[in-house]
Amino acid sequence: MDLRKISRDSAQTLANYLTYQAVRVVLDQLTETNPPQSLWLREFSAQISFQQGSEDYLQHLMQANQELAFRIMTVRDHLATNIPEFLPEMVRSQVQEANLQQRKVFFERLTQTPLGPEVIHPEVH
Amino acid sequence: MDLRKISRDSAQTLANYLTYQAVRVVLDQLTETNPPQSLWLREFSAQISFQQGSEDYLQHLMQANQELAFRIMTVRDHLATNIPEFLPEMVRSQVQEANLQQRKVFFERLTQTPLGPEVIHPEVH
Repeated sequence: MDLRKISRDSAQTLANYLTYQAVRVVLDQLTETNPPQSLWLREFSAQISFQQGSEDYLQHLMQANQELAFRIMTVRDHLATNIPEFLPEMVRSQVQEANLQQRKVFFERLTQTPLGPEVIHPEVH
Repeated sequence: MDLRKISRDSAQTLANYLTYQAVRVVLDQLTETNPPQSLWLREFSAQISFQQGSEDYLQHLMQANQELAFRIMTVRDHLATNIPEFLPEMVRSQVQEANLQQRKVFFERLTQTPLGPEVIHPEVH
């Protein structure tokens, strides 16, 4: 497995995700300060999805409303700057905790009192 | 904006993404070592998508093929353990670079020689 590539792709995924979060932050702000523009951005975001990537979304927005595009770029810069240094440690803990939970559920299923086959499929006998 | 929540959600997104990458790693390995099982996992993953979250995917896989589920869990643990400490710095650089690119494209468009309306819509005149 190519750990270097996976790390690069993870960083890219996270950058995309922060752009999505920046759009949400701006939407929340607009809902308070400028409801019609909030509605407009909501509709725009429903049409131009993030499926092509957040840069494509921003390029389209730049042409439709450059002020909002710049605002989202400023917010994502702020989010990226304030991502905690210990984020990798958070991910490690989450994965280990999730693995533990999966194992727990599995072994609980394995050790729970099983219904005999005669109860499940009485017609077999 | 709630930076603490955004950080938590970012870690969760990254944990999900590493599970997806772990599935890809195992798929690649199986393609080499056990093509029929690779095909089976590919079909399973097409049916049970990640849209419900990676834990839901793993729970279903645990019931269908516990060996593969445990294998993916081991790989994602390995990926999470080896995520570089400087990932937040990578994300920061990516966002700043992407913002720079967006601004560059915007200002290039702004300063490029415009085509007059008579060239674009000659029928108007």
